[in-house]
Formats: sequence, structure tokens, C-alpha cells
Amino acid sequence: MMNRGFQMTAAAAIPRIAFQGERGAFSEEAAVRLLSENIEAVPRPSFEALFSAVADGAADYALAPIENTLAGSVYRSYDLLLESHLHIVGEVIHPIALHLIGTPDATLDRLETVESHPVALAQCEHLFRAHPQLLRVASLDTAGSVRAVIAANDPSRAAIAAKRASEIYGGRILLEHIEDHRENYTRFLLLASQPLLPESSSRANKLSLVIELPHQPGALHRALGIFARREINLLKIESRPIPGRPWQYCFYLDLQAALHNSDTAAALEELRLWAAEVRLLGSYPAHEISTSNFK
Amino acid sequence: MMNRGFQMTAAAAIPRIAFQGERGAFSEEAAVRLLSENIEAVPRPSFEALFSAVADGAADYALAPIENTLAGSVYRSYDLLLESHLHIVGEVIHPIALHLIGTPDATLDRLETVESHPVALAQCEHLFRAHPQLLRVASLDTAGSVRAVIAANDPSRAAIAAKRASEIYGGRILLEHIEDHRENYTRFLLLASQPLLPESSSRANKLSLVIELPHQPGALHRALGIFARREINLLKIESRPIPGRPWQYCFYLDLQAALHNSDTAAALEELRLWAAEVRLLGSYPAHEISTSNFK
Repeated sequence: MMNRGFQMTAAAAIPRIAFQGERGAFSEEAAVRLLSENIEAVPRPSFEALFSAVADGAADYALAPIENTLAGSVYRSYDLLLESHLHIVGEVIHPIALHLIGTPDATLDRLETVESHPVALAQCEHLFRAHPQLLRVASLDTAGSVRAVIAANDPSRAAIAAKRASEIYGGRILLEHIEDHRENYTRFLLLASQPLLPESSSRANKLSLVIELPHQPGALHRALGIFARREINLLKIESRPIPGRPWQYCFYLDLQAALHNSDTAAALEELRLWAAEVRLLGSYPAHEISTSNFK
Repeated sequence: MMNRGFQMTAAAAIPRIAFQGERGAFSEEAAVRLLSENIEAVPRPSFEALFSAVADGAADYALAPIENTLAGSVYRSYDLLLESHLHIVGEVIHPIALHLIGTPDATLDRLETVESHPVALAQCEHLFRAHPQLLRVASLDTAGSVRAVIAANDPSRAAIAAKRASEIYGGRILLEHIEDHRENYTRFLLLASQPLLPESSSRANKLSLVIELPHQPGALHRALGIFARREINLLKIESRPIPGRPWQYCFYLDLQAALHNSDTAAALEELRLWAAEVRLLGSYPAHEISTSNFK
């Protein structure tokens, strides 16, 4: 269990966490990593449904993928975060370990087809090169393909998905860790209707904001200088086209900074006086990466 | 025709252009936009096969997607570009217009299933909301689904793909522009084994490079200052995890700069003296966006 120190609603015994995908998705694995098994999973079919789940009253939190080490930033999440009124209250970094999952009596020898989302299939090129007899079948969802294979009870079919999908649907893991690249991590943001309370945010050492700058040479350099001068470390910068103005960009910044620190406050004030737009997305505890996290 | 001013090999009458996907892919549409119909299409099944096509002698150029306004940067292309010895010699920005394509005698009324790559299916939510009877079917490739539908000659099936796929396989466009978001453009890079020749690069007003900085606060600010001080405009910045060092980043910069300009040369020299790594990816003519490009 890895409780990141944010405040749960006192009344709610079991927090309801919305995620995109079916039961057993990588997002659900990440929610368990962040919050323990003691959660209620609220699967949502689309990103739009995920980001509206909290406002709809269907969930207390939404867990949204924001960045993957192989696929890059999840721009749809950035855009929907901007459109929503949600606040970042936590983050978790989760390894995307892909497994080959069949029916309980399946064996690798008898396997004929392997189904999954095309992105997952494409990340297992080594498997298909080693077993050229296996036919790839595209599906809409990784965990959903495990559900379909188990429901059909067909030992010639297998799916590529998270370990959790195998546990939930009662499958058998035929091969573990079939992903081509082991450095496949996704960073998820935990989103809530209210920002972290100051009294519970003493561990909030990370700050995310989005800024829009005057369209002039050197603008980004000037903006970063506001933080560099105060020795506030920039953890990540992401440029994103501004809707309606193709090839003009806004910038998402992740800073190693506590919101209530006086240097941080002064930097934000200086930025606000000059930038076209500054919006705080959240102040939250950074997921500290250590080998022990990746069991 | 939109020849971007780079030099074709004098001997080769018809340049061979490799792209990822099947005949009729958006990449093939983009190649035609950049180079005219007078090309030989070299479809490749994977990104790896695309990036090796030039070295293999199978193609004169490779056209790789690098950035999409909805999906974000194509990190796989960035990584394979770094691993390869290819040079950027041109770019093209292509609108991703999605069409519903059926057999020649298909009608919308008789349609039952719609197949395509899940990413394309997800970009047509409005269609499926307006026609709830239509069943989504995942496939590995947009153009490949058109090929499959036409080969089956089944009027109850349709596919979502580029207009060019309909032309190549002899389909019928049942609905045009079914993409939810019209601002869906992909930027492609044209890659070759040799950089642009100085005598043919007078129009090369854009410079792409990748840099790795010392791991210290303010490093990016200092790097950008080298260009800002010389009023060299930063067009795009992209951070990318450094393989083997999770959550440390290198930076891809697109600059509005001619390589042989003395300010550019001085900036690159200053950067090289301090940065851990500086690699030029290419100097090439920027695709100038005007409405007339998007016919």
C-alpha cells in the first residue's frame, strides 16, 4: 500500500475511483498502487466519461494517465483537465507490465490468436517474432480482451493485458513480461473536485501549472527565468497547441516547489503580472521513485 | 503539388518514399501533398521497418509522423530518429480527415459494423452517438480495414480511413469528415541518408536539434537564453525521457533559424561548449501553413 498522504473525505469509508477502461485495466492497477485495495473501482468507457465522473457524483476521484515513457504525453488528458474544474491531488507512476493471458487450461502450444488493443500488440514485437504462428487480432481494450477470451473459454485464444485482468476474470498467465521495452511506465494524476487542504498538504512538494505566454521571441526563456532565479527546479515542460490557434503553444510546467513557500508565491506573482494566462492545476506530493515501488 | 524546395537525386526519376502503414494510409496522402503524385509508395508494416527502409536500399526517403495536434508527439519516431543516421530534409503538415468508406453499393441505412484502428474509432464519437445501431470493430490499420471491407464486398460493413484509401481500393465514401475535431493535423518529417546540400538549402529556415543538459536547476533556462539573446525564435520544445535514466529528459528544439547564419553558428558553438550533448537533426524549409494548403 502506498498512501501518498492526501486527505480522504472523512465520511466516505471506501473512496470511489473512476478510471478509463474496463475492470482489470492498468489504470485500476495504478489506483490500487496509489490507494491500496480498499477502493471501489468505477470503470468508465471513455476519457470524457472519466473526466465527468466526479462532477456527475459517480466517483470521489478520477485517475487519469498523463504521461508514458514510451508513448509520451497523453494530450487528451491535458485538454480535458483544462476543460474540467478538477484539481490534481496526487500522482502515481505505474509500470506497464504486459502479460499473455489465456483460459485456465490454455497452453502456449495450442495457442492460435492473440488479441489486444493495437498499441499493446505493437509493444510485443519480440513475442510475435519468436512465435510466428500466432495471429494478431485487434480489440478495443486490453482488459476487455481477457474478459472475452475467458467468456469464450477457447484455449486457442489469448489476450495481452495487465496481471490484474487475469486475476479478475480468472485467466491463466502463459507468459509474463512480454513487453519489448521494460522501461514502460505511465504516470497517473489523481483528480478531485477540491484542491488539497493546506493542513494536509505538508507533503505537497510538486506544483503543476499551465501558462500561456506573449507571442514573442524569448518568452519561454523569460518565464523559466522567473523560477530559475529562485532556484526552483523544473521537473517537466510540455508544450501543447492552443485550441483554435494551430502551432501556437501553451506550456505545462511541473515544478519542485511547495505552494506556500514564499519563493514559490513570489515567482507565481511575478509570472501572473506578465504572462497572458497562468492557471494552477494542483499542488501534491510527488511519487518518489524507488526500486521497491516496482515489485 | 507542393515541392518544398529540396533536392531530388538527379538520377532517380521517381523518388521512392517509405511510410508506415498500408497503401492508402494518411502517411501516403501526406507524401503526395509534399512531393506530388509522382512518387513510388513504399508501404512498411512497422515504425522499425520505416526507419530502416532508406539504409536497406528499399526507399530514397522515409516520411515519419512526428506530432499530431490531438494525440501529441509521436515519441517512437523521435526515438528511432535518434537511433538512425537519417537527416531531416523537409516537413509537411497534413489534415487527418476521417471518412466512412463502404463497398460501391453500400448505403448508410444497411450498415451494421464500422471497423478501423481504435484510435480512429475513438475520434468519431459523434458518428456512433448519432447512429447507435453501428457496432465498432477494432482493426490493426485504417487503410487495411478499407481493403478488407472491399475485398469482402459486404455492404453491411464500412471502415474509417483516409480518402486515398477509398480511391485505391475502390470504395464509396458514405460520410465525409466524421472526425469529432476538425483541428486534427499531423506533422511529418521527410528523412534522407544525407543532409540538404548547402546550395539547395537556401530555403531551409528551420532547424531541429536534440540537446542533453547538465542535471542542475535552471539548465533549460540557460540553454534557451543562448538562442533568446540572439533573437532566434523557438518554435517547439519537446522533453523526452533519456533511455535508461527514467524521469531525466533530453530536449528537442525546433528553431526558426538558417544553419549558415552567423548568429545560428555562434549559438550552436556556445551551446556545444556547455551542454552534455548537442545533435543536429536537420535544417529544412518550414511548411508554411496557409488555408490554400488545406484543400
